[in-house]
Order: sequence, then C-alpha cells, then structure tokens
Amino acid sequence: MNPTAAVLVIGNEILSGRTKDANLGHIAEALSGIGVRLREARVVPDLEEEIVAAVNALRARYTYVFTTGGIGPTHDDITSACVAKAFGVALERNPEAVARLERHYASGHLNEARLRMANIPAGGVLIDNPISQAPGFQLGNVFVMAGVPNIMQAMLDGILPRLAGGPQLHARTVACELGEGVIAAELSALQDRHPDLEIGSYPYFRHGFFGVSLVLRGTNEEEVIAAAEELGGIIRQLGGTPNVTIGTKG
Amino acid sequence: MNPTAAVLVIGNEILSGRTKDANLGHIAEALSGIGVRLREARVVPDLEEEIVAAVNALRARYTYVFTTGGIGPTHDDITSACVAKAFGVALERNPEAVARLERHYASGHLNEARLRMANIPAGGVLIDNPISQAPGFQLGNVFVMAGVPNIMQAMLDGILPRLAGGPQLHARTVACELGEGVIAAELSALQDRHPDLEIGSYPYFRHGFFGVSLVLRGTNEEEVIAAAEELGGIIRQLGGTPNVTIGTKG
Repeated sequence: MNPTAAVLVIGNEILSGRTKDANLGHIAEALSGIGVRLREARVVPDLEEEIVAAVNALRARYTYVFTTGGIGPTHDDITSACVAKAFGVALERNPEAVARLERHYASGHLNEARLRMANIPAGGVLIDNPISQAPGFQLGNVFVMAGVPNIMQAMLDGILPRLAGGPQLHARTVACELGEGVIAAELSALQDRHPDLEIGSYPYFRHGFFGVSLVLRGTNEEEVIAAAEELGGIIRQLGGTPNVTIGTKG
Repeated sequence: MNPTAAVLVIGNEILSGRTKDANLGHIAEALSGIGVRLREARVVPDLEEEIVAAVNALRARYTYVFTTGGIGPTHDDITSACVAKAFGVALERNPEAVARLERHYASGHLNEARLRMANIPAGGVLIDNPISQAPGFQLGNVFVMAGVPNIMQAMLDGILPRLAGGPQLHARTVACELGEGVIAAELSALQDRHPDLEIGSYPYFRHGFFGVSLVLRGTNEEEVIAAAEELGGIIRQLGGTPNVTIGTKG
C-alpha cells in the first residue's frame, strides 16, 4: 500500500485569480517520485475557521498533509496560528527559529513583524528555508511550507528524505491519434482485466491534430508493461499508431 | 453581499502531477469579474465516493459550484453519474444531448461510448459545448463542465450570463520595493482601519529585485481608492516608491 497525501493551498490570491498556483503540480510530481499518492487538494482563503477545518479534515484522512502559504510576517499570514489551533496546542516563539532570523537580518532589521515568523506551534519540528531563513514546520503529519514557489520547493527538498515513501509507481503513457470514443470500449475492458492499475484517458489537441494520451499506472511494473503492450495491440487493431513513453506520473 | 462559489476539479491526472490544472485560475478571474467570490477549490480523484462527498459538501455551502473534468466517453469519466448520485436523481439519456451528438458525429461514428456523454442527471439543464458538442449541464447550483481548457472556457462563457453576480469587486495593487516585514505593522493597522477590505501582501522576486505587491480589494470603490492612497503615503514615509495598478482581482 502506498502512503497517501493531501495538499492544502492557503491564500486569497489563488481564489481571486490574482496568482496562479504553481505549487500543487510540483508537490504532486515529487510525491509520485517516492511512491506517495496525492489523493486530494484544497484551496482555502485566509480565514481561520476555514484553515482550521481543512487541516483537521485532511490530517485525519491522509498519511501526510502539505500546506503552502500564509507563513510570512504580515497580518494575513495566519497559517501557523491556525495549525496550532487545529492541533489544540500553543503557538510559541521558537528559539531556534529566532536564532535563524537573527543570523539572516542585519542588526536592527529584525522587528516584531518579522519575529512573528518565529512563532511555531508547540512540538513543531522546523523545516529549513535555505532561501530566506524563516522556517516552515512539521507538526504531527502536517508539513507547513511557504507559498513562494522557490522557497516551497527548497523546503520540500528538505522534507522528502523524512517521508516514508511507498512502492515505486510505474507509468506508461500510450498516445495515439484515435478519438477517445473510438477506443473507449476496449479501454474499459482493459481496465476490467487490470483492476490494480489506474488507467486514464486524456484527449489533446496539439499542432492541429486531435489525439488521446492513455495512461497506465501502478506499482507492479510488469503488469504496467504488459497492459501497455495489450493497449498497443488494441490501438493497431483500430487503425492507430501507439506511441509509448515511460515515467512515474504518467 | 457577494454570491460565493467553489470549484471542484475532478481527475487523477491533476493529482499525479501529469497535468497542471489550467482551469481554476480562469474560473477565478471570470467570477471576480461578475462579483462572485470564489471561496474554495478542491481537487479529487476519479473515485465515486470522493466526488459525491465533495459535490454535496460544496453545494450546501456555496451559491454556485463549478466542476471540471470527467464528462468524456471513457470508463474513467464518472462525473455525471456521481452528480446524479449526489442529488439522488436518475442518470438518464438526454434526447437533446443525443441530437447534438448525432449532428456532430459522422454517420456510424456515434457509438455507445460516445452516447454515454448524453447521459445527464434528471432535471439537468444542458450547457452548450461549441467546440465538440458533448454538453455539460447545470443541476441545481452545480455546473458540470469539461476538463479540457478550451472547452471549459467556452462552456463558462455560456454560463456566465445565467449567473446572478454581485456588487462589482474593485482592487488596487500597490507594489513597492520594501520588504514585507518593513511594512507589516503599518499594513496591519491599515487593515484594522478598513475591516471591509481584503488586504493581502504578496512578496515577489523579479529581475533581481525583491519587493511586495499589496492588494486592496472590496466592493466600495471609494474606500479601496482611499485606502490605496493611505498606503501610498505609508510606503513613501518608509522610504519606498508606490506603484499602483487597477483591476478587479488585485
């Protein structure tokens, strides 16, 4: 069995359309690479009751929860306080986090607003931020990270070795120029013959041509390969030309 | 009061990292433009119990729910059946949807898999698909759309005139090269003076320079403008140069 995960994106700017989320796809790919299945994502605004409810709903259901956003120095950065509230623990000034900020900011620049970034829920384990020092933290199975993509990515790089992954996911993508509706019946039968595989069908329109990418994904590489070969045969029988690529995410 | 909305993105391909969602940002912007506040988004896999639970949770909380994905002809397209189940109504072959597919497909090409795309929950009102004809539908306050971005966008264009919008949202973005931590205390005081505005702070790193975009958003344009002017004064007092842009989403 693969561990499961959820991502919680926190921020009004994603919901207003101002900012396009760039973190979900990155986290999804990174988790696929270590055999963790991302099973849900949510985006919530900077409102305490929404964040607390989402943290508690997700941490009860999944092996890991990753949050992004809301850990900066301004009034709308309320993630740390909300995670403390969700866990029912105090929000405390963390001495190690203060020390990191003291090393980062020139003398006299570490004001009270910036010190808020050293407020960490009791029991939280710091997550390194090699870019701008203000740390994230892990509390239980919840990993709290920055929203700025390059900082989030650096934090995630530090977290991945801490995670217990699962069996490697293998994927084959078989693309062809047939319509989805042409291959649907045979594809459904293929799924029935391989219930342990996730088989997905994704139509595309590229360079003036319609086609479909068929993704087979699972932990048993031999079965993935065998099903991809079956699918290649089906496509040829229907008059198409299968084009296979290999990966972990499909 | 502005109507509220949620987006439900349905599809394994977003959670595996294979496909980067391109619909959430588009819907968010379009809703901002008509005064509907997007308050939550969720991404769930192609699993019946997850889709049914999310549809029911979201439609009870928000004025409108918009789903994307899972309405094609293949076995993993289960959104219509799940929405029917969420509402406790039958999934029926819709004659108007069949007629549209019959006009679209050449004789003999409208097979049973493609006819599945004409299965619509009882009571559903069709949403036009000018690109590939297979319609979406509205059932109650839930709008079911395709996942392929250009089809989703065309469907949304058709839906927007049906929606009751709300008071126009006005936004000013005041960017400056100050650090977030430098302006945080004054920004928090500004938020306290204008509790009806949403004030957000978004740090950036562009062309080798750090800075912050401060977004003020609300339905009272005069208050938004006045607060932006106050903020400009604050920034100048702190030694920065405010740079103001105007919009609806910030």
